[in-house]
Order: sequence, then structure tokens, then C-alpha cells
Amino acid sequence: MIDAGRPRLIALLHGPDRSGLVAGVSGWIYHKGGTILHADQHHDATTGAFFQRVEWGSSSGDPATEAAAFREYATQELGMVVSIALHARRPRVAIFVSQHVHACHELLLDWKQGDLPGDIVAIVSNHTAMEASAEHYHLPFHHLPVTQTGKATLEAKQLSVLRDLHVDLVVLARYMQILSEDFLCQVGCPVINIHHSFLPAFAGARPYHQAHTRGVKLIGATAHYVTPVLDDGPIIHQEVRRVSHRDTVGDLLRKGRDLEKLVLSEAVRLHLEHRVLIYENKTVVFD
Amino acid sequence: MIDAGRPRLIALLHGPDRSGLVAGVSGWIYHKGGTILHADQHHDATTGAFFQRVEWGSSSGDPATEAAAFREYATQELGMVVSIALHARRPRVAIFVSQHVHACHELLLDWKQGDLPGDIVAIVSNHTAMEASAEHYHLPFHHLPVTQTGKATLEAKQLSVLRDLHVDLVVLARYMQILSEDFLCQVGCPVINIHHSFLPAFAGARPYHQAHTRGVKLIGATAHYVTPVLDDGPIIHQEVRRVSHRDTVGDLLRKGRDLEKLVLSEAVRLHLEHRVLIYENKTVVFD
Amino acid sequence: MIDAGRPRLIALLHGPDRSGLVAGVSGWIYHKGGTILHADQHHDATTGAFFQRVEWGSSSGDPATEAAAFREYATQELGMVVSIALHARRPRVAIFVSQHVHACHELLLDWKQGDLPGDIVAIVSNHTAMEASAEHYHLPFHHLPVTQTGKATLEAKQLSVLRDLHVDLVVLARYMQILSEDFLCQVGCPVINIHHSFLPAFAGARPYHQAHTRGVKLIGATAHYVTPVLDDGPIIHQEVRRVSHRDTVGDLLRKGRDLEKLVLSEAVRLHLEHRVLIYENKTVVFD
Amino acid sequence: MIDAGRPRLIALLHGPDRSGLVAGVSGWIYHKGGTILHADQHHDATTGAFFQRVEWGSSSGDPATEAAAFREYATQELGMVVSIALHARRPRVAIFVSQHVHACHELLLDWKQGDLPGDIVAIVSNHTAMEASAEHYHLPFHHLPVTQTGKATLEAKQLSVLRDLHVDLVVLARYMQILSEDFLCQVGCPVINIHHSFLPAFAGARPYHQAHTRGVKLIGATAHYVTPVLDDGPIIHQEVRRVSHRDTVGDLLRKGRDLEKLVLSEAVRLHLEHRVLIYENKTVVFD
Repeated sequence: MIDAGRPRLIALLHGPDRSGLVAGVSGWIYHKGGTILHADQHHDATTGAFFQRVEWGSSSGDPATEAAAFREYATQELGMVVSIALHARRPRVAIFVSQHVHACHELLLDWKQGDLPGDIVAIVSNHTAMEASAEHYHLPFHHLPVTQTGKATLEAKQLSVLRDLHVDLVVLARYMQILSEDFLCQVGCPVINIHHSFLPAFAGARPYHQAHTRGVKLIGATAHYVTPVLDDGPIIHQEVRRVSHRDTVGDLLRKGRDLEKLVLSEAVRLHLEHRVLIYENKTVVFD
Repeated sequence: MIDAGRPRLIALLHGPDRSGLVAGVSGWIYHKGGTILHADQHHDATTGAFFQRVEWGSSSGDPATEAAAFREYATQELGMVVSIALHARRPRVAIFVSQHVHACHELLLDWKQGDLPGDIVAIVSNHTAMEASAEHYHLPFHHLPVTQTGKATLEAKQLSVLRDLHVDLVVLARYMQILSEDFLCQVGCPVINIHHSFLPAFAGARPYHQAHTRGVKLIGATAHYVTPVLDDGPIIHQEVRRVSHRDTVGDLLRKGRDLEKLVLSEAVRLHLEHRVLIYENKTVVFD
Repeated sequence: MIDAGRPRLIALLHGPDRSGLVAGVSGWIYHKGGTILHADQHHDATTGAFFQRVEWGSSSGDPATEAAAFREYATQELGMVVSIALHARRPRVAIFVSQHVHACHELLLDWKQGDLPGDIVAIVSNHTAMEASAEHYHLPFHHLPVTQTGKATLEAKQLSVLRDLHVDLVVLARYMQILSEDFLCQVGCPVINIHHSFLPAFAGARPYHQAHTRGVKLIGATAHYVTPVLDDGPIIHQEVRRVSHRDTVGDLLRKGRDLEKLVLSEAVRLHLEHRVLIYENKTVVFD
Repeated sequence: MIDAGRPRLIALLHGPDRSGLVAGVSGWIYHKGGTILHADQHHDATTGAFFQRVEWGSSSGDPATEAAAFREYATQELGMVVSIALHARRPRVAIFVSQHVHACHELLLDWKQGDLPGDIVAIVSNHTAMEASAEHYHLPFHHLPVTQTGKATLEAKQLSVLRDLHVDLVVLARYMQILSEDFLCQVGCPVINIHHSFLPAFAGARPYHQAHTRGVKLIGATAHYVTPVLDDGPIIHQEVRRVSHRDTVGDLLRKGRDLEKLVLSEAVRLHLEHRVLIYENKTVVFD
């Protein structure tokens, strides 16, 4: 029986497939005295790429050193691109939100419930709609409104907040400002956004109005990593819900809120559990 | 208790909403001795339009004359656009198909099962993949291949077949040729197509390849009325199914086949039951 | 075009079907100067029962008197059982909750968002987990723990709270005590419960453990009206979600929380919009 | 890049978990010159059991001998229960069907489409509804009606047919007779059944009638392995579909047909791809 109490490491690897990769990784872990808890691999027959997520219990007293050694091995010996995390280290998350607060509340409740394998460390907003709730949850609230001094000044303040808090992930929970390419270069961590449509349908502004005009029978929401091209980043998770001619734009907005909060919450959980690997503007999600 | 054996009429109405429309329609039917079996109405608050589907049992011995009288009343007195059908008259359906035969087989099995409130009267194809099955079901099979004589000649032959058979509906069950605007003008009945994506995402050719490239997490299928603008007609029904990075394009094609056949079959059933009303390039589906 | 600003009435009717019911109801409303906004009827061919929901804009200055007159008419002249509500009167809701707070939070956020056509007026709990949040939302919190003095005493206190607040609906948002038949007789308003399984599978205690043992591939949640027979009342709404062998009981609990909160929230909304009619231990939901 | 043309082996293993299992299996394959194409493992934290599906390309000219050697290794050295299949060997399937033919047709069309990794070799029926279609597909049709000579005689004939055809899987595609425990002992291969409800709700006869009486809002279908206890065997796959008060029992039957055929078809495909492992009356499905 396996001891769940030992320190755990999680590695995400990808690179050109060749014989012996699974044997190499599992053999390395076995010889270090580790025990594999989960391992999932994927071979993309089209591109010849190999992807793996492996999670193991370490028997060494120093998991950080073991992580470094594994990275060295998988990079040098196996030719893989490696990302490795210590399970015990909880990632630090900042939420950006504007006046639509449902997705932000969902993340806060997930966190309080213990369902989020990370910690929310700040709420950043160009509005004050979340200020009282942030206080209720004893969370720092940074009110950074859009002003005449311009986007560059605003983003500089945002980046300063994120750096001070050592943030590992930024979540745009219906944050209605477009982040500049410069911001994305400097932020130094992934940014996850929730788009309120089934991308690539209805990219851009007012997707529920677009959906209503087109007369679709399903509406959707899409969580994706943010890239400089608007609404075009790698998709992490999507859901849809049935609508009909009876639904006004207001009904679509209401139904969409449920979709948005669930899809974003699931995407953030998948990311924080180190289940998402980005590859050629797509994701491999080990769920 | 209502006598289910009496002749039934089904009317679809739409026009500008005003007080007394429901009372007018139901009063007219009541005074003719009819009994309403189903009635469903919709008021579009944005445009001020009224939509109704009403199905009633007639006590007159001549439902065709009653239908004409109702149309006269609803048009003249209520200002409605009216479409009216006798339940006993089974619409005649022609299926167009190319080499992908799953959606065509689904319709044939629905029909044989008694689930289709209409009759399939012919299969038209530019391939021979369905020839033996058509014979098995004792159905006329028209092999009209695409030849060097050109699309106009081919479409003239197709139109001739449809006219000879007095067809009420053409169903494109993965028919891989684009119908010309001229064909659509002359065909004289609705044409329903199945598109193998969640429209408006991935319109045009090879949608599963497009979906695979974009890395979406759901694939879909869309049944719609055909209009001269490709993949842009009023949507009748849509469904999606979850996919992952593990799915090759081949897997998407296989999963898509199930979606396509179910979505098309449902759309055809809804149309043949007179449940679909077209309005401003959208549909009102009374289900 | 219809004036949305006029007072609105909503009637739910059911009784034995006969000719002229739709004409009678719509004619009555028309002659009073009312305008039908929505009307939906259902004829149950098996039992010969008629069901209708009709919502209209009144032109009288006294909608309460109009409601009484309509009830008189539909009862006496049409032989219907009638329930009628003024749209402007917001129902008053009390939430009962124990230590699992996700479904309670969902209802509170819906209410704050403006998605709940009623008002939450109190939280009643045998635990204190919701106390701080109730205070944050400026809501009365009644901590009524289960003590040695017994269930009868506890329920008497609960009934007293409900009477003082003139409650129209009690929602059991994961309230883990069984209400006595005596309580249900005296409460004088409907009680909606969320059961954490796809009823009738896994009625009773620890349904996720039961589901895990049976190895089902979908888990569900069921919102239903409470009757003296445990988990047997009329079902309002149900949803399911896919699970696999990878899901531990803990994972089922987490996935179940999302189901529970969404299903309960939808059921409460449907009830408060007067869309649910109870008939022979089943519901007719006009959505 | 991996050569897809080499012979492939697929192994399913389960047994008590311990360190080194993944390394052992992947190392064995690597040292034989094999290349892992897919590998998926699962550790059940509750029971301490390990489950694995591993599929590899063999470089030996004799995959049958390699399979035997692997079985020997995994059984003796790793303490696993092992099932191993050669990808090139297509399992032989017999379909049992009564008068409801939709699920049988679905399997036949899947097979003809090339979506079924096995071969249908016979249809056995107590009715003649499928006789003409069997002939159309050039398939042996065995009409074995239920007669006064009794179930034992009938089952002896069925077993004789199955033995003569060297059948690897029996699929009950709406076969309405209960198979005896004696038959199940002697059949010598798995038997998959489609039950027309979301088990464990509505086990036994006439589940759609049961569902209609209970007033559920979703109906389902369940594919499971047959065991001597009726409707209690390990569940392979389940799906549900929304229904409402508008649906008569006839509508539930129609909607159910789509569910049944899709769920059974998916379960058969999963089984034939060696993705299903039975464990404690549950399944582990590696999909």
C-alpha cells in the first residue's frame, strides 16, 4: 500500500516521441525510491510528439533537489521540455474582475470550500463591486480604475501589485479590459480568461447579442490562456447549454453566467493541479 | 375526453402582436366545433412579433375547406402570415446523399420504425454507395453523377426528379455538392442540410480538420435550412459532444457521424411535424 | 406593441379537459382588456387532464380584484383548479441549511444578482457555518441546533420563525435533518429539497457512496417538493454529470456540489416564476 | 517517429499496487524492443489496487509468443491478473435481438462503416424482424423462437450456434428473454446487455413506464455486462436525455431508442478495443 503522506512531485513533459520514454521516466523514479501515483501519456500520431503527466511520491527528504535532478534527466537524456511542481507548494492566484462578479464569487467559494489547490491572494478591479466581498473574505482589494492617464500607467500599477504578491497565475474573471501585448510579456505567469461564447464562434464583443442574432440553439463559454491575439489563445475548457427562441438576450446573459463561472472554475482547477500542457496553441489536458 | 380520431389541422402563424390574437384563434376554432389539442405561442418582446402553433381536432367533415377558411380568417382579420397543414397528409421527402451514408441510413431507419411523420420517396445521389440499400428498402434510387456537362444540367435533372415525385422536402444528408441559387429558387420546397460543425464556428469545408487545428474541446453538428449564402441559413437544431487531445481527426469524424445523424433526424422530424417557423433568418421551434 | 409596464397576473390551471377551455380563458382576459404575454397549455392524453399557465398584462387598476374574478370564473365556469399570482408581489423565501453551504451561497448570489424573482428573508440552520455570510448580506440568521429537547421542540421554533416572517417558500439547501409529517402539515407553504442523486436511484443517506459502490458512470442531483415519504416527492428538475473510475468519493462530492447548487437554483427560480404545477405526485413545468 | 505498421499488443492488468509496477511493465516492453503507443494506469486509493492498460508496437516477428511471455512476466513477477490481446485479431461477435431492431441496426451500420474493431458473425433472434436485413448484409440469421419445449432446449441450441462460430462476445441488442445462470456459465465469453433505463433506477420490466409514472426529468440507458443477478452487472456506459411532462410513454420509447443504440454501440466499441476491465462488479474504462 502506498504512503499518501510523502512529498509529491508532478511533472509535465513533452517532446519528440521515441522508444523508451515511459520506461526511462518510470525507471528513474523507481530507482530514486519514488512511487508513481498517476501517470498519463499521449502520443500524437500526426506530429510524432510525446506528452506525459506523471505524479509521484518521493522518498527523499529533499523534493526540491529531486525535482531539479528530474528536470536535468528528462531534458538532457530524454530531450523533453519539462515543467515540474511540488504538490505541497500552493500556487498564488490574483483575480482581475470588472462589474460582473459571478465568476469571481465562484472562485472565492471554491477556494473557501477547499476545492482550489492554490490560494487567492488578491482581487484587482477597475470597479468597486467586489470591494465589500473581498473585505468579508479578508482579501486585499486593489481598485485600479481606468483613468485618463492611460492604459500603460494602469498596467504598470497592475504589474507592480502582481510582482509584490509573487503571483503564479492571473485569472480574468470577466475583466472587461484588453491586456496589452506588453503586459503579457512582462507579467511572467500564465493568464486565464473566460470568454462568454463557444469560441471560435462569436469572438470579440457582446457574444450573447451575436448569438441571439444568429439564432443558435446552444450557447457556450470558453476558458483559454490569454495570448496577444484576442480570443485566440489555447482553449482549456468549454461547455454549452441549450437555448431557444423564448430566450431573450437577458435570458442568454443569465444562463451564460452559470456557464462562465463553472467553465472558468474548472479551468483554473485543472491548471492549478498541473494538468494542462500547452502545445502549438492547443492544450493537452490530463484529466 | 377528446376524440383523437377526428381529422387534425396544424397552423403556424406569425405577425405583429396585438391584444386578442389568442382569443381570436381559439374562439374561431371553438365556434367551428374544433377542439384544441396543443397550442403554443411566443411573443418576441424585442420586435413585437407574435408566433403561434395551434393543433386542433376538427368536427367538420371537410378539413381542407376548414383549413382554407382558417387561413382566410387569420390572414384577413388578424393580420397573420399563416401556414396550415392537414395532419393526415404525409409530406413527401427526397434525400440527397453522397458517399457518407450514416445520416441517410438514420432517416431510413426512422421512417421504417414509424418515427418519421412523412414518407421518403426517393434517394438522389452523385455516388452509388446507397444504391443497394435503396433497393433493399424498395425505394427509387436516382444516380445523378457530377459530370463534365456541368452543374446546370445536373440540377435540371434533379429538379425534374423532384417535380415528378411531388416532393415537399429535400434533405441533404451529407450531400457534398453546393446547390446553386437558381436551384434553390426553382425547387419550390424547403431544403434542410446537416453541417458537421457547431455553426457559425467552422463554416465551409473540412470543419473537423478546422476544429482539430483550433483545439476545441467540443465538436458539434448543425441542421439548418439552406439559403443561397453557404452555411448561413436558419438553424433548426444543434448538438455537441466532448472531445479531447486524444481524439485524432479520424476520431472526430467518427464521433461527428453520431452527432450528424441524430441532429439531422431530429430536425427533419421537427419540420415534418410542422413545429418550425422561419423568421428573420432564425427559427422558432415549438417543441 | 404591448405595454410591459402594466400589472401582470400569472394563473396556473388544471382540470378535466373539454372543448373551449383555451377560448374561454383567452376570451375572458380579452374582454377584461388584458393582453396575454405568454400562454402554454398541455393536454395529457392518458388521463384526459388539461393544464395551462397563462400570464397577462392587466388594464384594470386593481389587479387583486381581477385575480379573484378570474379564479371565480375558471373554477365555477371551467371546472379548473386555479392558482393565481400577482407578478409584482415577490414571494418570501426562507433557506434551511446545515454545514454544506454551497447551495445556500448559490441562492444568495442569485438573489443579489437579481436572478431570483423573490426575496430571501431568513436563513435557518442547525449549524453556524452560514452565520457570518448571513450577516454580510444583512439577513436574519436563526441558529436552531438539534438538542436533547427533541425534534418537536425544534420544529415548533422553526415554524414560529416561518410564521413571523410570512414565508411563502422553504428551501432545504442541504439541510440534513428530516422534517416530520407534522411539520409539513403545519408549515403552510411548499418545501423544496435538493437530493444529491438522480432519484429514484440512491434515495436515502450517503448517495455518492452508494453511487461509487455501484460504479455508475453518471451522477445526478434532483430538486423535488418535500412530502412525508422520504425522497419521493414530485420532481422539479434533475441534472447529471459524467464520472469515471478515476473519481474517488471525494471527487463525486465535489462534482456533486456543482450539480446540487445549479439544480436547486433552477428549481427555485421555476417555482418562484409560477412555472410549476403539481399533479399526481409529478410536476408539469412550463419553461 | 514510431512505426504504426508493426504488430500491436494490448494488455489489461490489475492487482495490488506496489512500487515499480509502471517501471517494470514499461522496462519489459522496452527491453523486448517494443514501443509503447498508449499507456494508462489507475491507482485506487481506497482499495490499494493498481490497474493498467498498455498498448505497444512489437518488434518481434512472433507477437503471440511475446504475448505469452508478457503474461508470464506480469503474472509471476508483478503479481498481476493479465488479459492480453493481439490487435490484429478481430473479435467475433454474435448479436441477440428480439422485435426491437434499432440497436441491432446501429451495430450493423457501425460494422459496415468500419467503426467496430471486430466482426459480426451471426444474428440470433426469437423473432424474424431482422431476417431480411441479415440477408441484405450477408449474415447468418438463426431464428430460435421460444417454444413449449422450454428454455433449456432453446439455450442449448443458442450455445451450439455460438460454439460453432467461435464467438468472443455476445451482445444483447434488446433481446427480451432472460438468460439462465446455466447459460451464462457455459457461454464462455462476455455478454453485454443494453438496459433501457439509468440503472439502478428502474431495473426490471417496462422501465419507461416506470419513469413516466415517477415523473423523472431525464431518461437514460445503461450498457452492462450480464451477470446472474438481473440488471446488476458491471456498468460500462450510460447516457441520459431530457424529457418533460409533454412526453408520453410513446415519446419516451422513441427518445429511448436513440439512447439505447448509442450507449450499446459505444460500450461494444470500448469492449472490443480492450478498454474495459472488470473489478468488484464495477468497470475501469480506459478511454
